[in-house]
Amino acid sequence: MALPPHVSSSDFASALAAWRQAVGKDWVFTSDADVALYRDAYSPYWGEPEERLASAAVAPASLEEVQAVVRTANQYRVPLYPISTGRNLAYGGSAPVYSGSVVLDLKRMNRVLEVNERNAYALVEPGVSYFDLYDHITKAGLDVWIDPPDPGWGSVIGNALDGGAGWTANPFRDHFGAHCGMEVVLASGEVVRTGMGALPNSKSWQHNRWGYGPWVDGLFRQSNFGIVTKMGFYLMPRPESYVMGTATSMRDEDIVPMLDVLNRLENEHVVNGSTQIFGGGPGGPPGPGGAAPLWSIQAPIYGPEAVVRAQIEHAKAKFTAIPGVKFEVGELLRTPLTAAALARVRQVNFGVPNLSTFSMLGRSPVNPNPDGGHIGFSPIVPRTGESLLEFKRFYAENLSKVSGGENLGVVGPVYMTCWDRTLVCLIMFPIGRDKIKNAKMRRAFEGWVHLAAERGWAEYRAPAAFQDLIASTYSYNNHALLRLRESIKDAVDPNGILSAGRYGVWPKHLRKA
Amino acid sequence: MALPPHVSSSDFASALAAWRQAVGKDWVFTSDADVALYRDAYSPYWGEPEERLASAAVAPASLEEVQAVVRTANQYRVPLYPISTGRNLAYGGSAPVYSGSVVLDLKRMNRVLEVNERNAYALVEPGVSYFDLYDHITKAGLDVWIDPPDPGWGSVIGNALDGGAGWTANPFRDHFGAHCGMEVVLASGEVVRTGMGALPNSKSWQHNRWGYGPWVDGLFRQSNFGIVTKMGFYLMPRPESYVMGTATSMRDEDIVPMLDVLNRLENEHVVNGSTQIFGGGPGGPPGPGGAAPLWSIQAPIYGPEAVVRAQIEHAKAKFTAIPGVKFEVGELLRTPLTAAALARVRQVNFGVPNLSTFSMLGRSPVNPNPDGGHIGFSPIVPRTGESLLEFKRFYAENLSKVSGGENLGVVGPVYMTCWDRTLVCLIMFPIGRDKIKNAKMRRAFEGWVHLAAERGWAEYRAPAAFQDLIASTYSYNNHALLRLRESIKDAVDPNGILSAGRYGVWPKHLRKA
Repeated sequence: MALPPHVSSSDFASALAAWRQAVGKDWVFTSDADVALYRDAYSPYWGEPEERLASAAVAPASLEEVQAVVRTANQYRVPLYPISTGRNLAYGGSAPVYSGSVVLDLKRMNRVLEVNERNAYALVEPGVSYFDLYDHITKAGLDVWIDPPDPGWGSVIGNALDGGAGWTANPFRDHFGAHCGMEVVLASGEVVRTGMGALPNSKSWQHNRWGYGPWVDGLFRQSNFGIVTKMGFYLMPRPESYVMGTATSMRDEDIVPMLDVLNRLENEHVVNGSTQIFGGGPGGPPGPGGAAPLWSIQAPIYGPEAVVRAQIEHAKAKFTAIPGVKFEVGELLRTPLTAAALARVRQVNFGVPNLSTFSMLGRSPVNPNPDGGHIGFSPIVPRTGESLLEFKRFYAENLSKVSGGENLGVVGPVYMTCWDRTLVCLIMFPIGRDKIKNAKMRRAFEGWVHLAAERGWAEYRAPAAFQDLIASTYSYNNHALLRLRESIKDAVDPNGILSAGRYGVWPKHLRKA
Repeated sequence: MALPPHVSSSDFASALAAWRQAVGKDWVFTSDADVALYRDAYSPYWGEPEERLASAAVAPASLEEVQAVVRTANQYRVPLYPISTGRNLAYGGSAPVYSGSVVLDLKRMNRVLEVNERNAYALVEPGVSYFDLYDHITKAGLDVWIDPPDPGWGSVIGNALDGGAGWTANPFRDHFGAHCGMEVVLASGEVVRTGMGALPNSKSWQHNRWGYGPWVDGLFRQSNFGIVTKMGFYLMPRPESYVMGTATSMRDEDIVPMLDVLNRLENEHVVNGSTQIFGGGPGGPPGPGGAAPLWSIQAPIYGPEAVVRAQIEHAKAKFTAIPGVKFEVGELLRTPLTAAALARVRQVNFGVPNLSTFSMLGRSPVNPNPDGGHIGFSPIVPRTGESLLEFKRFYAENLSKVSGGENLGVVGPVYMTCWDRTLVCLIMFPIGRDKIKNAKMRRAFEGWVHLAAERGWAEYRAPAAFQDLIASTYSYNNHALLRLRESIKDAVDPNGILSAGRYGVWPKHLRKA
């Protein structure tokens, strides 16, 4: 059995005994076989000494059990790594950032505590997956949609806390931004409720996010300041209809006015769906009839039918005012979709969680267990056509250099609009079990990080193995933001027991000088 | 000259000398006449020993001068109270929460650093008022709107930091929620940039609010953790048109389905303007032709003309499906409004800041300087008709009790939708220079706070004199949220020099046991 770092075997034995007492012996995992289940299947260091590995795992079933586990960890200085469902694939999965941490697995806390149809919100525990919440809503016959990411087996809370986005409409697509109210267990074991939840007998915990005084919720995003045990989310009232508009152009430079039009339509909320930009590079889609358009922008709209029809006509008028740009209006779909209609669409765009993304990423009947997956380098770039063209050149000019002249199977660039005003330019790296290939991929990833940072671009989210690297690029004023976070870390978790190293924040005793 | 508490006269003299060196002698104010300008004209303790008073004021003109002032304050342990333009009327104005603090007046930092029309955002300093930003945009001929509150002379940053809301459309109405990126001077004098601003040479500071890692921006809302010296805000692309729909009913119980309809329309963003609910109590408006409707809901919509027409028809269909409910569609107004059209409307609804609210609150040509003003008790109540009816009964049943059987001139209840999912029920108290009347008003205010908290209702914002009282109602788990904030306060401002007591957070040496 592995020992957590800086913990004696007798102290660890005492901690394990206390945990077995608290959560039941069946829910403390120490065997190699059990602990191996918490490995990150897509670790860029798979099988190498640098792979981040858990020493054990403990799975509490209630708030009180979480508190007990944390108090014991504090007593014996055992590092914990809380996970929700452990499906944070491509970002570290269920493996800790700090090797030897004990995974605090919250999957058993899987209650949907409330779904309020009239005020369109949900209150859930961390073990609730998108599938669970969808099933609950469907069984209860409630007329609200969830906003699923790809894929749907992850935790609603976990995805939001890691900064994830989904595929229906704004503002629901921004999962952290669409939350309202939290319950958090601090490293001390104390329970805090945020926003209006700090009021005993509160009746508006999921009605108003800000509450009174300093808003602390943001601290628990991509962080190690506490363990979120309940979280509220705004839900989308089922939209009556959906239509997709697609703007295309054959000329590179047209992306500048096209993106200006899209920005305006989204900023005034006339286009509200998960817009996507295709083309402009090797990643572009094949066009119908042979001649591929260079750029293609998808602009989905949700709402009442007459409104959606007016919105799509408005969008068409604005796009086609650009010389050479065409705009195609798709079939208007009324909700709820029939089973036949649902089979023809991308289900996440209709609030239905699924796992089809895995087939897109290489899993197929012919190859049911592909040897590896992908991780992404995904910097935020200003939402202008000029920036997009600059990124396209940047990718073309540097691909060979960062790849050491080899074809590493990198796929890019992919342009994504995440949240309401953000453009993410994604470069996908294959990751597998071949140590030599993984090492080359890591060097390439690091190369992109440095080259992008020189231009003022950096990632919004990172795989565990690269979290320190990315954090180091956010260095304004001698890393002032990181130092502020470290001072808060020391205040709220003085023994540094929670998720050491997550997103670059280390406790004092593990901090590099 | 008054001395700050716990500061010796020689230390204070040294601090003043250092500040004169840093900001110029004309910008350090110590005379009684100068310091009196920072009094809160609407203090509920006007002229009484409990009135919160400044000891001096200092007005830096740049980031570097703010840093210098803060470092000196830290050296001599002088309490500072930063204000932006000092127009936080009804919430303490420019007076400190902790008597004897030195006001750090940021009005000279009044640069509009950027207004980006294509991506619809602004970056401003704290001294920039809504008038300033509007003038800048108008002179530059940019096609974006600001979201003014009543009145327009306040600071864009100050209003957002205090949790204010405005009168155009969601999501811009939520001023803190519509911000993107901050620059903050900490108590140490260090400068932090948040979100993407932490990246040197960042190109997306005002494009993505979340950045990478824990989000600290929320900490600077209604707080004393730092001094915000720059802040980005999303702006609204000028909407092509506006129309107001008004739903009315003669029956009390109709508010239940009416509010359900409004919630759904707002939650799906079909109605996007600053909705208002009138009636149901003594505060109801007179109806046309004598017969007053009991309830009246105003639902303004902004957007392209054809879209707005479809939206208002949809809203009408949903409201009039409730038996007995009528829906009137106002004149559709195209923007930019002519001067004649602008003279007929409420200008803040069209992004034009002004001071007309003062005439609504009793100032008139006949009475240009009324002896006092109003402060509001404004708890957040769940957005349902049942809650609204409960608040109406609550008000009627308790008005005489909390007022000691007297008519104190209280006006209420007023129902306001602030931000996208929040209902605020407002009770307005007159405040003046009569100490006996003020004492009665204070007792009544305190009475409402306690009675409301028993029902799970509490305020989102409070006058300085009542900030501790309101904070004490957010007491879940033995004031766990307050204790978390205190631990952060101790970490980021160990000497407790910034805004002691603001929103109930006191530094360690002033904290009650």
